[in-house]
Parts: sequence; structure tokens; C-alpha cells
Amino acid sequence: MLDELFSPEKIAVLGASRTEGKTGHEVFDNLIHDFEGEVVPVNPNAEEIHGHRCYEEIPGDVDLAVIVVPGKIVPDVLKQCGEKGVGAAIVISAGFSETGNQELEDKVRKIAKRHDIDLLGPNVLGVINTENAMNASFASRMPEKGSISFMSQSGAFCTAILDYAKAEHIGFRHFVSLGNKTLLNEVDMLEKWRKDSTETIIGYTEGIDNGREFIDEARKTSEEKPVVFVKSGRTSSGGAAASSHTGSIAGSYEAYKAAFRTSGVIEAESNRELLDLARAFDYQPLPDGENVAVVTNAGGPGVIATDEIEEQGLELAAFRDSTRRKLDRDLPDESANHNPVDVIGDAGHERYKNALKAVLADENTDAVLVILTPQANTEIEKTAKTVVNVASDFDKPLMAAFIGEDQVQKGMEILEENKIPDFQDPKDAVKSLKSMSEYREFLETDRTLRKVEYDKKEAKEALESMKSFEDAQKLLEAYGFEFPMSYLCQAPRDAKKAASKTGYPVVAKLDSPDISHKTELEGVKTGLEDKKEVTDAFQTVIDNAYHQTSGGGIDINGVVVQEQVEGLEVAIGLKRDPQFGPMVMVGLGGIYIEALRDVSFGIAPISEQEAGKMIEELQSHELFEGARGKEFATEKLKAAIIRMGEIGLNHSEIQAIDINPLILTEDSALVADIEVESDQ
Amino acid sequence: MLDELFSPEKIAVLGASRTEGKTGHEVFDNLIHDFEGEVVPVNPNAEEIHGHRCYEEIPGDVDLAVIVVPGKIVPDVLKQCGEKGVGAAIVISAGFSETGNQELEDKVRKIAKRHDIDLLGPNVLGVINTENAMNASFASRMPEKGSISFMSQSGAFCTAILDYAKAEHIGFRHFVSLGNKTLLNEVDMLEKWRKDSTETIIGYTEGIDNGREFIDEARKTSEEKPVVFVKSGRTSSGGAAASSHTGSIAGSYEAYKAAFRTSGVIEAESNRELLDLARAFDYQPLPDGENVAVVTNAGGPGVIATDEIEEQGLELAAFRDSTRRKLDRDLPDESANHNPVDVIGDAGHERYKNALKAVLADENTDAVLVILTPQANTEIEKTAKTVVNVASDFDKPLMAAFIGEDQVQKGMEILEENKIPDFQDPKDAVKSLKSMSEYREFLETDRTLRKVEYDKKEAKEALESMKSFEDAQKLLEAYGFEFPMSYLCQAPRDAKKAASKTGYPVVAKLDSPDISHKTELEGVKTGLEDKKEVTDAFQTVIDNAYHQTSGGGIDINGVVVQEQVEGLEVAIGLKRDPQFGPMVMVGLGGIYIEALRDVSFGIAPISEQEAGKMIEELQSHELFEGARGKEFATEKLKAAIIRMGEIGLNHSEIQAIDINPLILTEDSALVADIEVESDQ
Repeated sequence: MLDELFSPEKIAVLGASRTEGKTGHEVFDNLIHDFEGEVVPVNPNAEEIHGHRCYEEIPGDVDLAVIVVPGKIVPDVLKQCGEKGVGAAIVISAGFSETGNQELEDKVRKIAKRHDIDLLGPNVLGVINTENAMNASFASRMPEKGSISFMSQSGAFCTAILDYAKAEHIGFRHFVSLGNKTLLNEVDMLEKWRKDSTETIIGYTEGIDNGREFIDEARKTSEEKPVVFVKSGRTSSGGAAASSHTGSIAGSYEAYKAAFRTSGVIEAESNRELLDLARAFDYQPLPDGENVAVVTNAGGPGVIATDEIEEQGLELAAFRDSTRRKLDRDLPDESANHNPVDVIGDAGHERYKNALKAVLADENTDAVLVILTPQANTEIEKTAKTVVNVASDFDKPLMAAFIGEDQVQKGMEILEENKIPDFQDPKDAVKSLKSMSEYREFLETDRTLRKVEYDKKEAKEALESMKSFEDAQKLLEAYGFEFPMSYLCQAPRDAKKAASKTGYPVVAKLDSPDISHKTELEGVKTGLEDKKEVTDAFQTVIDNAYHQTSGGGIDINGVVVQEQVEGLEVAIGLKRDPQFGPMVMVGLGGIYIEALRDVSFGIAPISEQEAGKMIEELQSHELFEGARGKEFATEKLKAAIIRMGEIGLNHSEIQAIDINPLILTEDSALVADIEVESDQ
Repeated sequence: MLDELFSPEKIAVLGASRTEGKTGHEVFDNLIHDFEGEVVPVNPNAEEIHGHRCYEEIPGDVDLAVIVVPGKIVPDVLKQCGEKGVGAAIVISAGFSETGNQELEDKVRKIAKRHDIDLLGPNVLGVINTENAMNASFASRMPEKGSISFMSQSGAFCTAILDYAKAEHIGFRHFVSLGNKTLLNEVDMLEKWRKDSTETIIGYTEGIDNGREFIDEARKTSEEKPVVFVKSGRTSSGGAAASSHTGSIAGSYEAYKAAFRTSGVIEAESNRELLDLARAFDYQPLPDGENVAVVTNAGGPGVIATDEIEEQGLELAAFRDSTRRKLDRDLPDESANHNPVDVIGDAGHERYKNALKAVLADENTDAVLVILTPQANTEIEKTAKTVVNVASDFDKPLMAAFIGEDQVQKGMEILEENKIPDFQDPKDAVKSLKSMSEYREFLETDRTLRKVEYDKKEAKEALESMKSFEDAQKLLEAYGFEFPMSYLCQAPRDAKKAASKTGYPVVAKLDSPDISHKTELEGVKTGLEDKKEVTDAFQTVIDNAYHQTSGGGIDINGVVVQEQVEGLEVAIGLKRDPQFGPMVMVGLGGIYIEALRDVSFGIAPISEQEAGKMIEELQSHELFEGARGKEFATEKLKAAIIRMGEIGLNHSEIQAIDINPLILTEDSALVADIEVESDQ
């Protein structure tokens, strides 16, 4: 797929120019420089460019058109391309939706669709393919060959990455600027690179328009090779900045985080982290576990690495006795035979070799970080070569932190040329190992979705009326949710009867489709212990409702009398994300949900493992595991999360559901209060 | 002070050597290279070194002795120095406490003390002073002159920092390796650099031995100039690694964090962050507020910076109308006239100049971040010069992120040479601005300590008996703490009477000096509503205590019957840190304290502002501000924190106090449960 875009035999540059400095000149110049196929310039005002005969119109047999003409004539030019059977087009020209001219962009999209042209852009830097030496962009620097493919919504991000890549010998296979994404977008690149020999995919995005497709394709791709993305616009200010930058709707970051988790996409937070992860994933095998060994000639940076290992939730590898004996034998007395292994400041390359071999051979070691600072007797280049040699004997990831700059330069180059990622800061090396470990976990995770059965008839009926607590209860019961015993009561004497059925203590709550924040309106009374308290509460709740709303025309269904259950108060919610669809939230309930903002999100459908992950991601996750001897029915909580997602998928008329609290006990998860926002 | 260490007129190198590669040779070589004073080699086995006559013994008039002899003869050599009136000594030699030989180190310390020698080390890299071109170390690289002074417990950390510094043109005034710190330590350096013309102090430490002195001196210093420290060994594994590395007791990281906060020390987490902050503080003025303007030629990195600004709790500056008009006038139509200011990919240096001038002149701008990526028309060097020129016209901090490597190299150099800190990653620039803003806040904070009065007689009596809840209550009441009404009861009928005095509902709790986790032992009954429930509860609590401890010989004071108060459950604790003394903890109480680990610490004495900071630092701080219309008596909570610290300072026999919960209501902070661990 996209062969004409990436591997054309003949390319036409529409708007090729003789004037140096003009984009039409740069692009043509870049293309004729190395590209193995044929390149023809098209420009009605020129006879020849750099000795190439210039065409007035696009000739036949062209696979790829690179369009650099002024924005407003792009539609005409593209139509010509279509008529000549061109298969792919890169529209470098700007002046489309990014400057508010949506109409012009729509026109271009229609033409491309009609003529079945794979159109990249408009408003792009271009495409680079190192396989056939095609630089179809106005970036002057062609990166080295490699197995990483890169896509970016921002052209400027591309040029910065190209500059780093060149300096740090990072090789690329494909390099694509996506621009306005009027046709081709992230999903197409993922599919292409999933199927070709790309080994690592990295990207920068400010917003993804087709969220569901992205999740499906990204998951398929992640199952085969790592996909790393920077998503900018994570905060509300950042989102606003992103929107005004490319006109893309940034969407909620929580949704992206959930979408990345479910599809196995690894997140980087900045340009530096993106390249750190690109090198780590592309150069090194994945670790089998979380145990990291550190070998260092300096205690201080060893301690910094150790701190980061613990803070990232990785483990400092505990060596076997045989390893300790080897270390005792090969290293001087002052060296540590435990992790981190301090080979001492005067270590030469031999000592590094012995230590690295010993720890890599240990079955308790899953990954190694080797640290070097330039000291009096440090053999920088020899040690770099030793690291390279030893690493090649083991199938375990090895990261390096040669700390310093000029003095360690040669060593760093030897490492990078031999695919040992080197980091200025040991913390960054550890972060990369953490991401690799998470990706391995993704690969090992069973993501099977269990079919959720529900009572269609009951759900339909509930949705059709949907105005009381009972309707909401009926809907959720159709999906297998459980409730404390509860009765809707119209009069104090009903309430008394209800309480005698549920048993004391009970809760009394106002039930009105017009009032949502019951607690603030004093519409809830808890801990009612006897008949008198129940009948009093009934009256108070109704009175409060009238007072607080100034008696003004609100519907009141009555008062719900409910068995009072003790347990952990959890909140579960459903809402719709414009990009990714139904999204489920889980968090600590009660008054804590607002103050702690300790919530996590999942995109429906949600697998059992992912529901578990959502709970694990909570700061308060230990509370869910039970505290002080109590264990909670977390299986039931997971089931509730999964079913909440299904409700969102099955009933598009539901805009939002809030369960707060869901009371989690040792053997149940009971919906104590619920609100449904529905279109019906 | 320490003049003989930093500014000697005559230096003797004891153990100077002719053999290249030997430390004694390197040190002598470094010293005679540039040092302005006299340097004499001392070595009984050599006649001359590099044309300098070699002494058999240390001659007279020597100010500073640099000792490179084998560890075991250091005491003899040092004694000679003392007898000859040497004022300062740098002991580079190793083989002391760091290898377990504490005895040898004690010997050296005693000799130095007896002869009043300012002794640095042992086990150090040495001292560099760029003011008099003295390189009294075995590091081959002398940094450029500057106003930053650096100290490090780790010698290897020094060499790595030196290497970076050289490459990035970071200048230093003094550069000190502290080693085993047998006499001179962080506190001495802080005092020295507070009094001299150092402008920025940075350091690396694994553990500070004299915590109280450190806090006092660091606070005094921070009030005059910024002090930035990397503290490694933050986690338990890191702490263990640090201990085995230098033999220092790492201490709890919480204590360091609190000590740094109270003394205004800025924390960096790694070598890279340390240099980032060093450059930021040393090169640029402090921002007056938190409003950051971003000027960029690339939308993507602008969005990344915006995200980081919000995540760090800074603000994106909101421009005045006049600024917007200037931007509209001077920038092309597609540019943004709001923050971040996108000058568009084809911006030359003129456009950067106009944008920077406009935003810097805006009174709503406190700091500026300028971002550049290398694009087709980018004028990298000219733009760097423009940034330098514009910055010099304003007294506001300006940070740069010229993103890329080879292409932007020249620009980065122009920036760094002219004291504009440049960052590879815009996130790091924003982090530095955050630290600067926090430091400004420290400088503006009133740290006055209010005198806490207490009833000495009552406190003394309580401490002397200290075995029941009542004793603990008496102690805390002597300090002005308030309690819910409560009575210690010996029999069910007492309990009944007590409850009728406090009013229902009540709580019944076991009171025993032998049982601490009352809840797990079911020694607490809450929500008791009438006489029968109270008498039943009395019996149950006593029974449970006997059953759970198998009836085994525990002391029981009785059952405390207490008024049940509703409010926010807070935990406050006191413990003693081995380095820093009495330390107060505050956090969410009840079952949350263990699961959420949402706690913060302060070192006594605590000012009111700092007590407020401790609450602010909690994840759950919004809960303390009140939720859903309720406001809590946080002033009383702050007072409780301050008094808790005073108790720790006044009564050394108290090892620990745990108040959990302290019930915070709208007008009170009531101690509902308390445990005191005392030596008495």
C-alpha cells in the first residue's frame, strides 16, 4: 500500500523553480540529488532546471506528484494529476485550513477522492524514504538509513528531529510530515509501517480526528512493533494552543491517555523523550522482567539511577550467589558485589567487562545500565567498545550513561554507532527501561473482550421513560448491576413501611429528575435508625427541595428509602468523548472525587485486564485492595466498569451516567446513587 | 574565612611525584600550570620535579598542604604540617572511613583539630579556585571563570560536571570535592560562599550529618543567594546504595525535603537538572511573578511548552491589548497575537525581535521562553544575537530552547556565551522557571516564628506519668490542643453516665498502654446511640481486648467514652529524624493515611507560613479548604502543626506522637485519638 507515495518510479515536481531559496527549488534539488528513480520538473515558465527539461504540464507515467504551486491553484493542478492517472500527491503548498481556508481544502480533498489519489497534506514538509534515497521534502538533511519510521503533524518538529537524528546517528526508514491530514493521516501510516519492515514507529500529534480507527489500527500495530507518540496539548492551555495552531480539536487528554493504553501506544512527553524511546526500542531487545542491574565507576550517579529505578516502579536486580562470587573474584576489594555494582573510580575497561559479564549472565538480571564518568584512569573508548562487545553476547537490553561531554564524546559515538543507547542523565535511561517494560507487559496481556449479555427489553423500557431513580435502576439492573434494597415512597407512611422491609439503618433521598446535586440541597439523610427518624427525614427532604428551589415548579418523584450499606465509596461514570466515543471513569467516591481528582479512564469496550489497570492507576489503588484486613469485591467492580462501557456502546441516546457512590463491600458492589443524562 | 584553603600564598604538595599518571604527579602538574602563588613539592625520594626543588619535609610559611601520600602515613604528615603552622590541608589520599577504616579517619580528625588545621577530605578530588587560577586537584580540566560555586560529596560527580561545564561554557568560582567530610562540610562551604562574591551555589550530597546547623546556615545563605542541591538516595534502595557508597547515613528523604523547604534550598533531581538550574539562576534575574510568555517559530514545541507551564503550576501570560496591537502590526497575519506567540516557520530574526520586545514590555509578562527550530528561512545566528540584545534591555528572565543539534549549534553557543540559558527541551526551560518562581516566593515569605506558650507544670506532670489516654490528653491540653468531651470509664455504668454527659452519639475506645492498633483489635465502637449500646460496647471492647491478646497480661486503663464529632479526619504526627530533629507530619487521617500516603513533613520549629505550605503540598489540599460549601478551621490546624513541633523541641523524652484522627470542623480542631511514645 501507498507504494506510489513511498516507492514511485517517476516523480513530477509541480512548481519546480530555478530560483534558489524557493521551496520549489529546494524540493527539486533534494529529489535529483540521490533518488534512484526519474524526476521531472513541471513549470510552464521555465525551459529547464539543473539540466532537466521542464514540462509545461504534467507528463504521463508519473507515480507521485510533489505539489509546490501557490495554494489557490492546487485544485487545478491536482485535477490534471488525476486525469493523467497519478497515484499519489504530496501537497507542500500552504494556505488551507491552517489559515482558515477550509473551503479550498475541501475542494482538494474531493478531487483527490474522485481520482483516487493518495494525498498527503496540504501544508507539509514532505516525505523522506531512505530506502530509495528519496527526499521529497524541503528539508535539506537526509537522515541515515535505519529501521525507525516517523510521522509528525508539525513540520517544524520534523526539522528539529532531523537535526538531532543526524548528530546522534539515529537512522530512519520513512520520515513523513502529515500536515493538515485532509486524507492520509496517522492511521494510514500505522497500517503501512505495520506491514513493511519498519521496526519502530514514532510520531508527534496534536489531535487525532478518527479516534476509533486509530485505536483499532494502533492496537494491531503495537502487537507487532512498538509505537511511540508525543501527544501535545495535554493541559487545557496546551489544548487551546494546539487548537489555534493547527485548527485540530485537541480533545481531552484523559481520552488520549486511555486510548494509548488500550492500544499499547507508548507515550513520550517531549522531543527529547521521543528520541530517547526511539533509540531504546529500536536498538535493544525488550527486557523479560523488571530487574535492572547497574554497573558504575562512580557512586553518586549510581545512587541517582537507583532512586529512579525505585521511583519508576522497577526493581534493583538481586544477584545470585554465583554472581556475587564472580564479582568478588574479579573486582578489587572496595568494589560492591551487590547492585549497584561500583567498579570504583580507577576502573579500566577490563574491570567493566568482568562486571558486565557477571551481571548479564545472572538470570535475575533483566536489563543493565552501565554508567561511566571520566576520571583519572578511565579508558573511555576502550570501555565503550567493551560495552558493545559484551552486549552482543546477551539478549538483554543494555543502556549506557557516559556522563560528561567533550571528554566522553568518542565513547558516546562508539556506543551510538553500535546501537547502544547512551543518555546524558541516568534517569532518562531508567525511564526508557520503564517504557520497555510496560510495552512487554502490553504484549503479554490478554485483551480478550468478554461478551456482555443484557436484558434488551428491560433496558429499552427503562430508557423510554428515564426520569426517576427507578428507571435508572431498571436500566442498570438490565446490565446486571446490583442495588441496595430500596423503595420509592410517596408518603411518610410508605417510607416507614419501606424501612421495616430493608431493615435499619436506612438512607432517605429525594428523587427528582430536576435536581442533580442532592447533597448540596440537603436532599439526602443518612443513618436513619427508627420509624420516627424515617418519617421526619421524609418530610425534611421534601421541604428542603421546595425551599432550596424557592418552591419553583420542579417535578418530584418521591423519596427513595434505601438500606444503608457500609463499604468503600467508589465513583463510576460514563461520558462520550468526541474522538474516541464512550469512555468510562473510575475513582474514589463520595466527597473525595472532587478534591483528590484521583480518577482514571478507559475507552469502551474494556477488557477485564484493562479494568484492572484502571483501578491500579489510581493513587488510592491500595484502598481498593482492602485495608486493615478487609478485602473488597474488586471482581465486581471490574465487571461494573466493563458493563458501563457496554451501556455506552449499546445506547447512543445516553450522554452520561454518574454512579456515586457505588458501595464496594467484601462481597458486593452496590449502586447507592445514580444519575443518567439521556437524549430521550 | 578558609582563606588558606582557597587563597593560599604558598602551597606544598606532599607526595608530589615525577611519575606521570600518578595522582601526586597530576596534582603538582595542575598546580604549577597557572597558579599565581608559590608551589613546592615535598617528597623525600626525589631531588626535583619539573625543575622545582623537592623538599624532604614540609618547609615553613606554607598556607595550604595538598596531601597525596598513602592513607596510612597521612597522620604523620599531617602532624608535621601542624607543627609547621600550616593553616589548611586537602587530603586527597583514600583508604579511610569509605573503606571501613574509621579509626584512621578519627586519628586524622583529631590531629587536624589539635593543630587547628582546616581539613578538607580525606578521599577528595581536590579544590579549584578560578579566581587565583588554583587547580589543587587531580582533575585535568580547569573550568572557565564564573560566579557559580560548587561542592560535591562525590568526586566522580565533580569530574562529570567539569566536563559538561567546559563544553557548555559554564563558569565557576570555586569547585570543591568534599569527600568524607571529616571536618569541613557543606555548612562551612555555605558560610564561605554566603560571605564571598559567589552568586549561585550548587551542590551534590548523599547525606548531611549536622542537620540543624545545615538548616540554619542554608537558610541564612538562601536569603542572600540561591542554593541548589541534588540529594541522592531519595528512595529506600537509593538510600541503601548511598550508605554503602560513602558510609553516610542517608536519613529519610522526607526529612531532607522538609529541611530544604524550610531553608529555601532548591532541589534538583539529577546532574542535568543541577546544571540547568545553575545556569538559570546564575545567568538570569528572578521573575516577579508566574506569568510566562512563549515566542516560537514552531507550533508543536510551543504547545509542549504550554502544557509544561500549566503542569508546573505557572501561568501563560495574558497580554495587554497594546501588546496584541503591536504583535498584529509587526507580525504576518497568520501569526498569533496571543500567548504562545507563533511567529511562523519562515520567521527571520527581525520578526523574533519585534515579538520579543512586545511581550517583554508587557507588564503582564514575568518571564519569556523563546523557541526556535531550524526551518528553511530560519536565521539561527542572527536570531541568537537578537535574543541576547533584546534580553539586555529588560530585567526579566529569558530562557531559550533552540531545538536541534548541529544546525543550531552556533546559535546555542552565542546564547550560552551571553548568559542566555539554552535548553534542548522546552520542558526543562519551564522547570527552571518554576524553580526560580519558587525561590522568589521563599524570599518573599515571612518566616517569623511565633512564640508558643504552654503550661509547663501540667506538661511535666503528664509526662511523668504518661500511660493513659488521659495523660496524653493532659500533655496536649497543656499546649492548647482541644479534645471532644471524653471520660475514662471503669465500668459499664460509668460509661452510661459519661454518655449522658457528652450527649449521643458517642464513641467507646479501649485505653491501654499496651495496645496501639485499637481498630484492628476491634477496640473501638462508634455511633453508639443509647444507653444500651454504650454498655454493650463497653463490654465488647474489653472482651475483644482479652480475646485478641489471648487474655495475656495486658494493662487496661479502662474504656474512654467520647462525644462523636463529625468533620474531616486529619492525622498529625511527631517523630525524630536522626539528622534534623523533631519533625511534624500532616495528612489525611482515618483509613486514608495508609492507602494514599498523602502526607507532608516539616522540621520544627515551624512558622505559620510553613504550616500552610505543608497543607498545600498535600494532594488532598482542596479537602482542607473545605468542599461543597463547608469551610474548615485551617487556622486551628496550622496552630496544631506548630505546637506539635514545639512539643518535640521542648521534651526530648518524647519519641513520637500520633494524633489520628484530629477532627477538623468549621470552628474547631479536636483530638479524637492520640498515642504518645515516650522514654519515660
